[in-house]
Amino acid sequence: MAYSPLIEQLIASLRSLPGVGPKSAQRMAFHLLQRDRRGGAALAEVLGAAMERVGECRDCRLPTEEEQCSICRSDGRDAGVLCLVESPSDVFALDQATDYHGRYFVLGGRLSPLDGIGPAELGLDRLEERLRSGEIREVILATSPTVEGEATAQYVAELAREGGASCSRIAHGVPMGGELETVDSGTLGHAFAGRRRYE
Amino acid sequence: MAYSPLIEQLIASLRSLPGVGPKSAQRMAFHLLQRDRRGGAALAEVLGAAMERVGECRDCRLPTEEEQCSICRSDGRDAGVLCLVESPSDVFALDQATDYHGRYFVLGGRLSPLDGIGPAELGLDRLEERLRSGEIREVILATSPTVEGEATAQYVAELAREGGASCSRIAHGVPMGGELETVDSGTLGHAFAGRRRYE
Ligand SMILES: [Zn+2]
Ligand SMILES: [Zn+2]
Repeated sequence: MAYSPLIEQLIASLRSLPGVGPKSAQRMAFHLLQRDRRGGAALAEVLGAAMERVGECRDCRLPTEEEQCSICRSDGRDAGVLCLVESPSDVFALDQATDYHGRYFVLGGRLSPLDGIGPAELGLDRLEERLRSGEIREVILATSPTVEGEATAQYVAELAREGGASCSRIAHGVPMGGELETVDSGTLGHAFAGRRRYE
Repeated sequence: MAYSPLIEQLIASLRSLPGVGPKSAQRMAFHLLQRDRRGGAALAEVLGAAMERVGECRDCRLPTEEEQCSICRSDGRDAGVLCLVESPSDVFALDQATDYHGRYFVLGGRLSPLDGIGPAELGLDRLEERLRSGEIREVILATSPTVEGEATAQYVAELAREGGASCSRIAHGVPMGGELETVDSGTLGHAFAGRRRYE
């Protein structure tokens, strides 16, 4: 037995969403059809508009339908300090967790030559120009502590040095409040090797 | 910090989907924006069409954009046997798990007077006519083993008896392969009270 063509298409299409398997897709489809037509129609409209109109900020590559994002437009942000992150949600997370008042640069990924992701795919050609111009005096590397994230941080650090900017990398180690035994051994080894004098 | 208006709207709208909280909505939005614009656009289109065009089968209330669903259209299905279920996905689950060859009736809920869900909301007025007409000789009650599901089953059983149809209720008890200790006490009590002669 199959549902009607349109419902089968809807269930299949909902699986484009990350983390949605066949069962949740079915549950979502019937929830919208039976209980929330208005919400479903609103989602269809805003999703269509977003897929068509959202581009990226010309300066930091944060997705936005505007030419420049609100952070790059803001006068209250220090344009001489740039924090390098992999994904748009990192910007949100850092802005919530810190009192950082510089700007960001969103890579949208990590250097991964085997997957065809080189500097140009991450917008690093454009960033290179800005770093060389000397307009940026400080770079904070907040890419993920993975092999590719580390390689990406090193690549940008080199560009930053050539442009005369100082560079720092966010700290990695045992999470605050984390029990040692629940932390994976890679993190633990990293935290141990990166220990600091305690005074 | 907030994302651009369209992205904030998209994240808010994705929360119309059941089981999607703020974090998954954000992850879904950026996944589609950064990695699957085509999938997102296709979802927007099919979702819009489904919200607009899907109605319900005139006979069994299964959601469909057609006048009659494929089950009610089928000649190979016994129109004299009707299985009463709460949701469209129950139809799918029963059809996969059994060799049932009758038809279904989809309530779309359970009787719940306090929530304003009476017989008419579940299409029971239409079902009553069919039961009274004597065209149905057997009714299988497959509503959920909850207070409301049980009340709904009893309500329909009464209509069925008036129409001269025989009635059965699917069995509830310890799931196959289930360990007694992992089964909730309500189920266990029900299974114990409903024990059958073993030969
Ligand atoms: Zn920006
Ligand atoms: Zn039908």
